[in-house]
Amino acid sequence: MTGRVLVIGLGPGEARFLTGDAVAALESADAVYGYKPYLDRVPPRDGQELVPSDNREEIARAGAALERAAAGATVAIVSGGDPGVFAMAAAVCEAIEAGPPAWRTLPVTIHPGVTAMLALAARVGAPLGHDFCALSLSDNLKPWAVVEKRLDAAARAGFAMAFYNPISRARPWQLGAAFDILRTALPPHVPVIFGRAIGRSDERVTIVPLERADPALADMATLIIIGTTETRIVERPGLEPLVYTPRSLPL
Amino acid sequence: MTGRVLVIGLGPGEARFLTGDAVAALESADAVYGYKPYLDRVPPRDGQELVPSDNREEIARAGAALERAAAGATVAIVSGGDPGVFAMAAAVCEAIEAGPPAWRTLPVTIHPGVTAMLALAARVGAPLGHDFCALSLSDNLKPWAVVEKRLDAAARAGFAMAFYNPISRARPWQLGAAFDILRTALPPHVPVIFGRAIGRSDERVTIVPLERADPALADMATLIIIGTTETRIVERPGLEPLVYTPRSLPL
Repeated sequence: MTGRVLVIGLGPGEARFLTGDAVAALESADAVYGYKPYLDRVPPRDGQELVPSDNREEIARAGAALERAAAGATVAIVSGGDPGVFAMAAAVCEAIEAGPPAWRTLPVTIHPGVTAMLALAARVGAPLGHDFCALSLSDNLKPWAVVEKRLDAAARAGFAMAFYNPISRARPWQLGAAFDILRTALPPHVPVIFGRAIGRSDERVTIVPLERADPALADMATLIIIGTTETRIVERPGLEPLVYTPRSLPL
Repeated sequence: MTGRVLVIGLGPGEARFLTGDAVAALESADAVYGYKPYLDRVPPRDGQELVPSDNREEIARAGAALERAAAGATVAIVSGGDPGVFAMAAAVCEAIEAGPPAWRTLPVTIHPGVTAMLALAARVGAPLGHDFCALSLSDNLKPWAVVEKRLDAAARAGFAMAFYNPISRARPWQLGAAFDILRTALPPHVPVIFGRAIGRSDERVTIVPLERADPALADMATLIIIGTTETRIVERPGLEPLVYTPRSLPL
């Protein structure tokens, strides 16, 4: 009996955002490992075991799943959004590299998903329609000075940006500091988009100019998109505005 | 009769990568507009008209679809991957902004998809597992000097990168110039991943160190991922290596 490891992206919140590929992978698993709120989104299947774990326990979760696969099971490890963007795919690779040699013989397939920044961008228009970066604002896993350097470089080079992990109870000041850095490099009108629970009944989207960007508009589950100097807001009568970054810069 | 505009991401190549949301949106359309190779991927439906157009005709295509929606039809405009990443969502917003006032009254929904960089990353491991950028290397819509500046800034700030539109017959030298810029800013061992037709029978994936990155490995349909100084390659007996960028930097 040969075990297998499936790393699966659940997309942003609603079941309709799952790919057919992810649905089929989930169905084939004997056991599904993940952060509890993500497991709640896995379609129930008889005989499939769900193994919840806490957030910020990625390496322990990956290790437990790999051990089970090494014993012959088909295990799924799930992430919200896409597993390759600030999520479980890197943790699984890291656990395999550091783990026993047997783990390197396990077939691993990674099933991509719609990551949060794409869902929020789609919700408001096309703010990531030109060159952009994705950054985690968490300084749990990297020095804050690196975040500062990347924010400044991205703003000065004209990238739109998506912030993952913008704020948490343990990281209350970092998002305000990030906005301060952006305000030194970008004009005050640059649109900032706060999005939470996209596509769900408790969805919340707020668009403000950078000069009024307030960390209080975000919580742990918020994704933030920062436009560029060129980002446009198209007002529409009776409809929400469209926010987009043009595909072209003057030649 | 009120028309509607659906901008839909088809994901990377295979039907299994479509989301349920995209499938439902496609089914509801009276007519589907898109670049011909993408229309070939739309599941056939009786009574639905397919309206092909050439690549690089985004604004004309968006205008034709908007005109039809303004006349009362439900029109879909499709992109490969995600419509918000170097694709049709920004073109549709741009056409609405520049078009007749009636177009601003049309309901527009954008249906996100799995963009090519996420599919290629999943195929090889998690090379975008930490902060990263997405750049179009095309200088059709922006000055080449902007591309150079962004490449240099992203490399020096430690972002992984994904290159869209890396090369074409009309842009033969730009990718080589991009590699030269990266070689001045990054060490020679940084992994470069070339991916084409991911998940299809003619899939081709090549991983080389930056010092040996050769534009001849790419064509118009190739996506390229550049790792960082930290990106790891995990060799596995009898299996392809895993390439991943660790989630953490030393604190």
